[in-house]
Amino acid sequence: MLTVSDVRFPTSLEQHGSDAMHTDPDYSVAYVVIETDQGMHGYGLTFTVGRGTEIVVCAVEALSALVVGKSLEEIVSDFRGFYRLLTSDGQMRWIGPEKGVIQLATAAVLNAVWDLWARSEGKDPRKLISCIDFRYITDALTEQEALDILVKAQTGKQQRVDQMLKEGYPAYTTSCAWLGYSDQLLKQLCTDALNDGWTKFKVKVGADLEDDIRRCSLIRQMIGPHNTLMIDANQRWDVGEAITWVTRLAEYKPLWIEEPTSPDDILGHAAISKALAPLGIGVATGEQCHNRVMFKQFLQASALQFVQIDSCRLGSVNENLAVLLMAHKFKVPVCPHAGGVGLCELVQHLILFDYISVSASLDNRMCEFVDHLHQHFRSPVVIQNAHYMPPKDPGYSCEMLESSVQTHQYPQGQVWKNLQ
Amino acid sequence: MLTVSDVRFPTSLEQHGSDAMHTDPDYSVAYVVIETDQGMHGYGLTFTVGRGTEIVVCAVEALSALVVGKSLEEIVSDFRGFYRLLTSDGQMRWIGPEKGVIQLATAAVLNAVWDLWARSEGKDPRKLISCIDFRYITDALTEQEALDILVKAQTGKQQRVDQMLKEGYPAYTTSCAWLGYSDQLLKQLCTDALNDGWTKFKVKVGADLEDDIRRCSLIRQMIGPHNTLMIDANQRWDVGEAITWVTRLAEYKPLWIEEPTSPDDILGHAAISKALAPLGIGVATGEQCHNRVMFKQFLQASALQFVQIDSCRLGSVNENLAVLLMAHKFKVPVCPHAGGVGLCELVQHLILFDYISVSASLDNRMCEFVDHLHQHFRSPVVIQNAHYMPPKDPGYSCEMLESSVQTHQYPQGQVWKNLQ
Repeated sequence: MLTVSDVRFPTSLEQHGSDAMHTDPDYSVAYVVIETDQGMHGYGLTFTVGRGTEIVVCAVEALSALVVGKSLEEIVSDFRGFYRLLTSDGQMRWIGPEKGVIQLATAAVLNAVWDLWARSEGKDPRKLISCIDFRYITDALTEQEALDILVKAQTGKQQRVDQMLKEGYPAYTTSCAWLGYSDQLLKQLCTDALNDGWTKFKVKVGADLEDDIRRCSLIRQMIGPHNTLMIDANQRWDVGEAITWVTRLAEYKPLWIEEPTSPDDILGHAAISKALAPLGIGVATGEQCHNRVMFKQFLQASALQFVQIDSCRLGSVNENLAVLLMAHKFKVPVCPHAGGVGLCELVQHLILFDYISVSASLDNRMCEFVDHLHQHFRSPVVIQNAHYMPPKDPGYSCEMLESSVQTHQYPQGQVWKNLQ
Repeated sequence: MLTVSDVRFPTSLEQHGSDAMHTDPDYSVAYVVIETDQGMHGYGLTFTVGRGTEIVVCAVEALSALVVGKSLEEIVSDFRGFYRLLTSDGQMRWIGPEKGVIQLATAAVLNAVWDLWARSEGKDPRKLISCIDFRYITDALTEQEALDILVKAQTGKQQRVDQMLKEGYPAYTTSCAWLGYSDQLLKQLCTDALNDGWTKFKVKVGADLEDDIRRCSLIRQMIGPHNTLMIDANQRWDVGEAITWVTRLAEYKPLWIEEPTSPDDILGHAAISKALAPLGIGVATGEQCHNRVMFKQFLQASALQFVQIDSCRLGSVNENLAVLLMAHKFKVPVCPHAGGVGLCELVQHLILFDYISVSASLDNRMCEFVDHLHQHFRSPVVIQNAHYMPPKDPGYSCEMLESSVQTHQYPQGQVWKNLQ
């Protein structure tokens, strides 16, 4: 049985999550629960920002016809085939393919399947490779190359596991500087974060240049010259504009400019990367990069210097594995997108996997963290000294509290009734 | 008032429309009717192939909140702003942006707005330019360049109008060689088409190489060496596979290979273009190219030699204008995708506009035609001697017969009830 809920949090009331293109997000999820005949449960979700969540719910319902009636064993014994069944249904692929609403819905469904599967058994390299659909990426990464990467990374694996259990995976915070926050709030949050041990900070930019200069200057002052600053324009600019604007902010030494322009503009990102390289500023993108074919090209074109995978935009673990392996081959670090609702909970698994089983490196790597809405999850992320501590509960960590789901269902939950 | 219907035709029963990736399409539309307070009607649609149409309908319903309550005058007086309101809503853009389900829904809604507007007044170059959202494409085409193109094409306009009224716009046929058709049916249809004056033929390929060789050989024999043959793989191959496969079919002298690989793979199409150029075979793509940013890059990367715009995949006339103008600047001919349900009716307007007001050229240009489902439209296309004759009725030609809509509504229409 598969059920799906439209769960929304009224975050726009306090401007949490506001940026240059999403000025009033209500952080939301399409939340999926799969129940097997044996009474086991798998939990999955995809993140949205309010209106339109009902469309993703509708798409999950359409996909559920391809899932219900199959056993977990049936699915995972040919996971590549099952992946393609969902993403390449002869009728439904027309409304994608592998992008937008239908891809978000695929992520929600498959995240639940992975949650179920994660609770039940270990996965060796060959098994993992068999989950990946290599269609359209063999010119960049063959199945054999992928397997070789995983086999090679078996060396030193236990050491890295031990290290992660002890130290955790490095994180950066986006919680201090949403675009809608006042300078005063920004200062306060920055001070608190420094006290909590944070050393890497992301600032939203792109709406007004003078504001950006003031805010970047303020944060750089607060954090000092040795901590790390990143800036994020959320797709606000055209190509030329991005180069001019970021050049004006170069004196605050950002490590990267994130989403300078359209998430579809590979060649545009390549031009921006080339122009900003002499300033020591990299380009980061990926939270709205919709599939492995797009990531392949970003890598082929040297259009990004930081790969920001997303646990809910791509087709779940299956497609994220393909991107992690391609990024490794092209020697570009992966720094996942997180925040939202449940993205931290999900993506911590992927980035720990990247370190332990793929890249074996922490150079220039860190995972986004936003201190937000974790209280609605049964196994929320644990942050210690600005690091993600490995999750201890089985599964994919995105089971929500039943009470949270109920009160936030849209439009009938109590939270939304009270706002009417 | 805006109403939307899920209208499906059970075309899979006879394998009409079958190709290497869409083996059993039920040609369908999300059909939109806008009624103004003055009782005027605008009709719009977007094409789908069956399952999943309900998701697009759900998206149209979500977008309708942004349309209902606005007058036509309000919308067209700042059409660029209205376009961006629909495509960049701060919450809904997350589930696109400008791609997949939400973009198809945008097309359906805006097609209806254009239908309304088309009935009411003439549009000069400046007015048309003001409908285009230049965000993300100014590195390829500025507003001034776009205006210059339209102004320049005023010369000789009346001559071209007269020519079109007399001769019509050249077309090619896809009706003869769907993948699911038998050789016998294929021969029969080819003979009929030759008798009707057709000179350009498209064949579906990509499922089985030996079948393709047999079918291409058969058709080339039937049509002789001087008529035109195109082949269409509907995204079936990886990059290397596309090059190898098409090379094997080169002796049948196809003008183009259409959709050789993923519609998102700009760099892949560029590699294929480069490899096939010495064989005299061009690359065509676009029916699943989801926005102007993607088309911009296909042009920048010399990744296609034929631009196949789609009236329902892109954001209606607004976005198609941007693509027509970019194609002209990059000197690449536009050969629209059509067929489906209502695509011929819609796209004839765009390609006539391209000839009369943008490119002023017929070199290497032709518009797809599929002889299929036209009987459900109030003003179906008129084909004479393998040419589209300019439509005479006002509007955008996609008003459907009420009886057709009713009997084909899914799942409650009589046609579907009978199939249960």
